[in-house]
Amino acid sequence: MNVLIVLKSLGMLLLCEAVALLPPVLLAVYYQENTVPAFLYTIIIAVIIGFLFYSLKVKDNVIRYKEGFAIVTFGWLAVSVIGALPFIFSGVLSSFADAFFETVSGFSTTGATVIANVEIVPFSLLFWRSFTHWLGGMGILVLALAISPALGVGTFQILKAESPGPISAKLTPKLSKTAKILYTTYLIITLIQIFLLKLGGMPLFDSVVNTFGTLGTGGFSIKNASIGAYNNIYFEVVITIFMLLSGVNFSLYYLAFKQKSLQQFWQDKEFKVYLGIVAAYILVIALNLYDSVFNSLWESLRHASFQVASIITTTGYATTNFDLWPDLSRMLLLTLMFIGACAGSTAGSMKVIRIYLIFKYVQREISSLIHPRVVKAVKIGDQPVQETVLSSVVAFSMLYILLFIIATLLILTQGLDIISAMSAVACTLGNIGPGLNVVGPARTFAPLSDFAKYLLSFCMLMGRLELYTVISLFSPHFWKK
Amino acid sequence: MNVLIVLKSLGMLLLCEAVALLPPVLLAVYYQENTVPAFLYTIIIAVIIGFLFYSLKVKDNVIRYKEGFAIVTFGWLAVSVIGALPFIFSGVLSSFADAFFETVSGFSTTGATVIANVEIVPFSLLFWRSFTHWLGGMGILVLALAISPALGVGTFQILKAESPGPISAKLTPKLSKTAKILYTTYLIITLIQIFLLKLGGMPLFDSVVNTFGTLGTGGFSIKNASIGAYNNIYFEVVITIFMLLSGVNFSLYYLAFKQKSLQQFWQDKEFKVYLGIVAAYILVIALNLYDSVFNSLWESLRHASFQVASIITTTGYATTNFDLWPDLSRMLLLTLMFIGACAGSTAGSMKVIRIYLIFKYVQREISSLIHPRVVKAVKIGDQPVQETVLSSVVAFSMLYILLFIIATLLILTQGLDIISAMSAVACTLGNIGPGLNVVGPARTFAPLSDFAKYLLSFCMLMGRLELYTVISLFSPHFWKK
Repeated sequence: MNVLIVLKSLGMLLLCEAVALLPPVLLAVYYQENTVPAFLYTIIIAVIIGFLFYSLKVKDNVIRYKEGFAIVTFGWLAVSVIGALPFIFSGVLSSFADAFFETVSGFSTTGATVIANVEIVPFSLLFWRSFTHWLGGMGILVLALAISPALGVGTFQILKAESPGPISAKLTPKLSKTAKILYTTYLIITLIQIFLLKLGGMPLFDSVVNTFGTLGTGGFSIKNASIGAYNNIYFEVVITIFMLLSGVNFSLYYLAFKQKSLQQFWQDKEFKVYLGIVAAYILVIALNLYDSVFNSLWESLRHASFQVASIITTTGYATTNFDLWPDLSRMLLLTLMFIGACAGSTAGSMKVIRIYLIFKYVQREISSLIHPRVVKAVKIGDQPVQETVLSSVVAFSMLYILLFIIATLLILTQGLDIISAMSAVACTLGNIGPGLNVVGPARTFAPLSDFAKYLLSFCMLMGRLELYTVISLFSPHFWKK
Repeated sequence: MNVLIVLKSLGMLLLCEAVALLPPVLLAVYYQENTVPAFLYTIIIAVIIGFLFYSLKVKDNVIRYKEGFAIVTFGWLAVSVIGALPFIFSGVLSSFADAFFETVSGFSTTGATVIANVEIVPFSLLFWRSFTHWLGGMGILVLALAISPALGVGTFQILKAESPGPISAKLTPKLSKTAKILYTTYLIITLIQIFLLKLGGMPLFDSVVNTFGTLGTGGFSIKNASIGAYNNIYFEVVITIFMLLSGVNFSLYYLAFKQKSLQQFWQDKEFKVYLGIVAAYILVIALNLYDSVFNSLWESLRHASFQVASIITTTGYATTNFDLWPDLSRMLLLTLMFIGACAGSTAGSMKVIRIYLIFKYVQREISSLIHPRVVKAVKIGDQPVQETVLSSVVAFSMLYILLFIIATLLILTQGLDIISAMSAVACTLGNIGPGLNVVGPARTFAPLSDFAKYLLSFCMLMGRLELYTVISLFSPHFWKK
């Protein structure tokens, strides 16, 4: 393990974070809030530590897998620790466990909150909180790489550890160029959504932070009742569409733009399966809600659509307290927490492509029982999938379920009920946000113990970094020379 | 598909069932119960249908996989349909859904019941009910094969479909001899347990039926409070030990007997992991129960031991209403429902060896991330496991989880709560018996809808026949020539 290059990269990251902390300072000044010192102290700390690490003399410039994994994991941890400071310095959150949870929740684009009354929090802090979603969304590392190729050695390994999903997007051979393309796409979609929300009459500040929450598939809201507080169909439609768009593999946008055609979308198997799952869930949940919760089919469809889009994209916004829905709908939402949207999007959880491959894998096994001599390759569309990729997908899903069970049991030691514990783990591991019962959309994670908050923070981090990146650090092999 | 040989085999099975229905008739006569006609009518029906099918002229005597799967699945269904008749003819159960559920639960060694007050049911019916556990335990087909090798063509395929677990026991090359050895072992252990229970003062009838429930890892009880009704430590210890013994691969007993040494047990990786899981669960649950439910550590250990042994072996007996335990213990029991005991035992669920292999599989994937060029074989002890076996194990687990989720969602359409629905599916798919909440150990499955009863019966059948056997029948390939 080349510790020096890891530390140097962390230094670089903290310096980037210091820059990212400037907009909240300007906002604090503009709104004449007392949070200016909180942000300034944080920036000073980030710059000092960042500079110390960044100025380390590194002999060996090679970043291998090990270093890549360490940079990503410890990088995410480091920016979360520093990013938590404004919450403490401003007095909005008093315990470090709370501030750390909130910031990990932000950077991991989870959106689970410990702030019970978010409507009294200063604008500058609300902005920072939502900004962490946006930064986390495309990966603060891809962002850092795109802005400054100064670190540009062996960055492929970092992207491998970072990029969500089993299939890497083949956009351009050069990484920094890839990062720039993704980042530009992300920025353009962000601006369009802000414009559309503002056009519909949403205040500019709200438009910006809600867009951050949407694009990063985060879900932090600046209203206690989340998006439901606006009670505005237009906003809901715009946010639903942009949540779903944020769940699509971003390379498809680039290809569509380059080829000036939407053909790529319809040739993408994962995209079609994703839309199919969304449609099926909306239909079943709407039918279940019709007459049991809402008297009109329209209202049922409205809330079912928003909630399905919100959960499958792992955003976590709510227009209504879905925890009060019938148990069939609640269970459907719980299963949706394990699916997530497309690989290469900003969504968390297992991803549609993995679920699809698992179905194909099981299907092949059944047919091999009947025709034992015929071994067929599993295909995505016309493309055969390598057995090593398949193994990796299957092992990932197993690991996901194992971690879910272990974390649920650990949370249960803290006195929660089974549904609360299961949903708390499912919605942090999957980077969704609110769960059911005690951690339902009308409540917060505040009443949980510090142990539970740290454990769930760890789940968010593991989920965001696709398990292996974090888990491999616990392997004794990892640290061997 | 050679339909004739399948029908002929079913005929053979029904004739065997007719013979198995004779002991209850004798009991009914002995106890002067009014159930004699109920059993006689059933025997007549079984003999007529059995004889009709068995006398079919079969040209092609070959039993391939397809026929093997069909015989096992439809065989289990057929004996359950016929075995349900005494419940209806005697008037103890009025609906066919109830009687079918109860009998599938018996033959699949599940032990979930729809009879609210079991203490008023005639002895002859109670005997039949528990006898189905015993018959189902070692597989009514292995039993049929051992008694009469008349069918003895291509029987290997039947055993492959029948035998639980990924690893076939290599006892003797000849199947009917294997069956006889397993059957004799089973019979000897049965007699020992009956003797031990009787020795401790349990009435003979109770000793016999409780032993049937133990050895078959079934769990039907003749008391409303299950084994707890006796409130006798000796009985609990004997039953706990024999439940755990029934969860061991039966080939180990044969080998131990042949070699006059217990060495085989300590060389068996699965056996050791099984004991390790049992010990760990007992410890954690006992600690959780201590002070929260029971004031003494001894009482906590007593009930924790019995319940862990009961659930991991998928028996389902209870000494106390474990549904009233804290949620950590309830969730632990729920996870235990997915483990099951050793392959080659009478237990249901996923089996220890599969869980062990999954852990090894995930572990290999993680280490391959760090050392991408080194591909190691997964081993059980010193034995490398074939990749095809590993694939099959992994796909099985995936399928198990998928079916669990789908069945849970379907049960939720019937108005149950999430915990009840999840545990109802877990404990039928895993052939355990009682679940949590609505289907907890102090309640029955009686209040469920007919749809739910048929669905859960299907789960029991799928679980007992290790999924693939049943699922493959739904594949369009299966029915192609």
